[in-house]
Amino acid sequence: MYFDTIAAVATAPGEAGIGIVRISGEKALEIVDKIFRTKKERKLSDFQERRLTYGYIVEPDTGKKIDEVLAVYMKAPYTYTKEDIVEINCHGGMIPVRRILEIVLENGARLAEPGEFTKRAFLNGRIDLSQAEAVIDLIRAKTDSSFDVSFNQLEGGLSKEINEIREILLRMLANIEASIDFPEEDIETMTYEGLLDEGNNVLKRIEKLLDTVYTGKILREGLKTVILGKPNVGKSSLMNAILRENRAIVTDIPGTTRDIIEEYVNIKGIPLKIIDTAGIRETEDVVERIGVERAKSLLEEADLVIVLFDVSKELTEEDMEIARLVKNKKVVVLTNKIDLPPVVSREEIEKILPGKKIIETSIIKGEGLEVLEDSLKEMFFAGEIKIKDNTIVTNARHKSLLLKAKKNIEEAIESIEMGMPIDCIEVDVKDCWENLGQITGDTVTEDIIDKIFEEFCIGK
Amino acid sequence: MYFDTIAAVATAPGEAGIGIVRISGEKALEIVDKIFRTKKERKLSDFQERRLTYGYIVEPDTGKKIDEVLAVYMKAPYTYTKEDIVEINCHGGMIPVRRILEIVLENGARLAEPGEFTKRAFLNGRIDLSQAEAVIDLIRAKTDSSFDVSFNQLEGGLSKEINEIREILLRMLANIEASIDFPEEDIETMTYEGLLDEGNNVLKRIEKLLDTVYTGKILREGLKTVILGKPNVGKSSLMNAILRENRAIVTDIPGTTRDIIEEYVNIKGIPLKIIDTAGIRETEDVVERIGVERAKSLLEEADLVIVLFDVSKELTEEDMEIARLVKNKKVVVLTNKIDLPPVVSREEIEKILPGKKIIETSIIKGEGLEVLEDSLKEMFFAGEIKIKDNTIVTNARHKSLLLKAKKNIEEAIESIEMGMPIDCIEVDVKDCWENLGQITGDTVTEDIIDKIFEEFCIGK
Repeated sequence: MYFDTIAAVATAPGEAGIGIVRISGEKALEIVDKIFRTKKERKLSDFQERRLTYGYIVEPDTGKKIDEVLAVYMKAPYTYTKEDIVEINCHGGMIPVRRILEIVLENGARLAEPGEFTKRAFLNGRIDLSQAEAVIDLIRAKTDSSFDVSFNQLEGGLSKEINEIREILLRMLANIEASIDFPEEDIETMTYEGLLDEGNNVLKRIEKLLDTVYTGKILREGLKTVILGKPNVGKSSLMNAILRENRAIVTDIPGTTRDIIEEYVNIKGIPLKIIDTAGIRETEDVVERIGVERAKSLLEEADLVIVLFDVSKELTEEDMEIARLVKNKKVVVLTNKIDLPPVVSREEIEKILPGKKIIETSIIKGEGLEVLEDSLKEMFFAGEIKIKDNTIVTNARHKSLLLKAKKNIEEAIESIEMGMPIDCIEVDVKDCWENLGQITGDTVTEDIIDKIFEEFCIGK
Repeated sequence: MYFDTIAAVATAPGEAGIGIVRISGEKALEIVDKIFRTKKERKLSDFQERRLTYGYIVEPDTGKKIDEVLAVYMKAPYTYTKEDIVEINCHGGMIPVRRILEIVLENGARLAEPGEFTKRAFLNGRIDLSQAEAVIDLIRAKTDSSFDVSFNQLEGGLSKEINEIREILLRMLANIEASIDFPEEDIETMTYEGLLDEGNNVLKRIEKLLDTVYTGKILREGLKTVILGKPNVGKSSLMNAILRENRAIVTDIPGTTRDIIEEYVNIKGIPLKIIDTAGIRETEDVVERIGVERAKSLLEEADLVIVLFDVSKELTEEDMEIARLVKNKKVVVLTNKIDLPPVVSREEIEKILPGKKIIETSIIKGEGLEVLEDSLKEMFFAGEIKIKDNTIVTNARHKSLLLKAKKNIEEAIESIEMGMPIDCIEVDVKDCWENLGQITGDTVTEDIIDKIFEEFCIGK
């Protein structure tokens, strides 16, 4: 495959110590030899491969120094793209990276498209498609857990599982072919039995991957959590308590949007995106006071609702309305203000929200918060999340392909059980194999590849 | 001097291909040897110095892989800080850089303070103080010209000039000492004559540097330009015309604030920060309509005012008010709408704004814009700005020290001319020498050094 030489800024824009311009392709070294000089007028090609070499970027015509840099040449194929790569580390900030990029482009490189370096790593066969997709997830990861999952995928965790399942499918196809070529009765019976076993094995393994999708989604996007309760029930105190104790990983990241009512926190490894409905406007009208319409639309997307009741006062119509709103959601109920003399009993709450987890709290005194956090963790992950041991599906494309593959293999199994003609079975097994192959990129079309890499940032 | 080992993220935060964690100090390699492994379980110290080596950052206790990285060891003293440096290039994005930094800190490094790498480069004698200050200016540069000026300063342009002046002063001091030690009449006369020559030489060179301050300020901060005129006179059209033709360097930079009424443009190498008063609220009241109060405060800080009059209509009270507001400012007057039949003559305009540059324009037809741009350039720079040949003072601290040094040498010259006792002269020459030494950092106190590096970004 022939590719031209591409270049892009590989570091984030902004004021910083170091910026990097990355060049990949056959002409990378030739281009940099035109524009890089050491103090003793040596070129980058005068030095060993992979040596980080101090020098200047100069305008080739005028010899004018543009910036002092460290440059390194990495020889194909042991590079990110499997092509020749030169990286130029210059001063951070806007001007030096832009100017060096311009000079590189003027001297024979083309501006890389978003994700083009990683696309080449894929097209040149260094990584498969699911590994390439992991790269952008790594970069976008908001928590350690989601990073770990993507890193596992980059290291080939998902690919290995998919490849193993596809090998079984290939074996099934080979048996089917054999059975078609030599259609003696006894071989066919054996084939059917074997196919059924293997088909069920495939189904089980696909289902196991699909079981991880929910965890994957949470790790990737956070658990959308709505705090709901009438005014003065303790919503803001709860928000503050959670933030104070857990103002951890995600909110520490500069650049995270800090909406008034949305906060990312990390409770015992679960990334929560908390939406505090304290921000919902309260009017005279009872129904409006709890901002029903706003709450409804928030609830629609919520993965979890934390509902607060003030048990030191009689329940009101607002409390009832709230209970009605959340009855079909995943809910944790906090019976708050237990430090005050109780007026409402646990039974009353159980009656209006049957079957929901109820935790007694005095948020203001810090009581019950630890129980809440443990409960959240229990509700969403049975036991520890062992990223290291588990391949977790986080990607919507993968999920959709796994669902298709599941349907294919279920239909194949049904056909086998019904003793349908073996070539009918073959079609479904083949489709299953192909759908899974789209995950690793073995059977994927160019359109899909383009679409995947469009989502990348430039310089990766 | 003994320093501990420091570490920081050296790239800007954000989603990007590459992030860098930089470590400087005696223990840099030792720390990385604990946490870096290649696929074949080799350490970074198993490889040649300066070799960009592929491997993994691992948790030392568990062996758990954190990220795949390229690491490089640069041995003292030929490094940025003159100390051992290790740089770890990992995936861009928040999580990998933060986690790797955490592991580095857990294994023996301390988080670097803002500018601490550059501070060490200064304290370890690789660069002087004015060069160190150039680093942060480089990073913050908004135009090619301001980058070039800072780069010249980093390369020692200013230091060289300051050092040469200080050598003259040192020679003067030596002569004064000699004259005090051997106070024969004829030596003293010769000394006075020589001192006067050299003092005038010093004064001339300091004044030459101070002459560049205004250019330096413009290059660094842009020329604050206010566009003023009554409603519908063509302010927005002018703004659009300038932006369309010159939407160059500065506005291309991602992250630049794009206020509705403020825009950075680059006209023939002059960075202009244009404030369009079209945004000023217009009310019924005549005075209020041109937003006098707002305009006044804008005008106070303006380096340049572009005033527009519509010469196709009679001048109004608003026009007069505008003329009064700007009469003491640096002004370019545009007599606009010359494509329409003229009602107001050039003489009338000259009468209300005497001595100002007047350019006839039809902004809507693009007439006169080229003249405007050339005039701007002429007004602010006599001829081409030759950054390469000129050392330009951009730093407020340097300016203030140069002003002090100028006062010192002026007083010394006066004393020489008045034939004052030679030890009186000595004090001023010494002060001049010391003030200039604060620019290069030779005579600077720790407080000032700390203050300078506080302004840096972390990781530089």
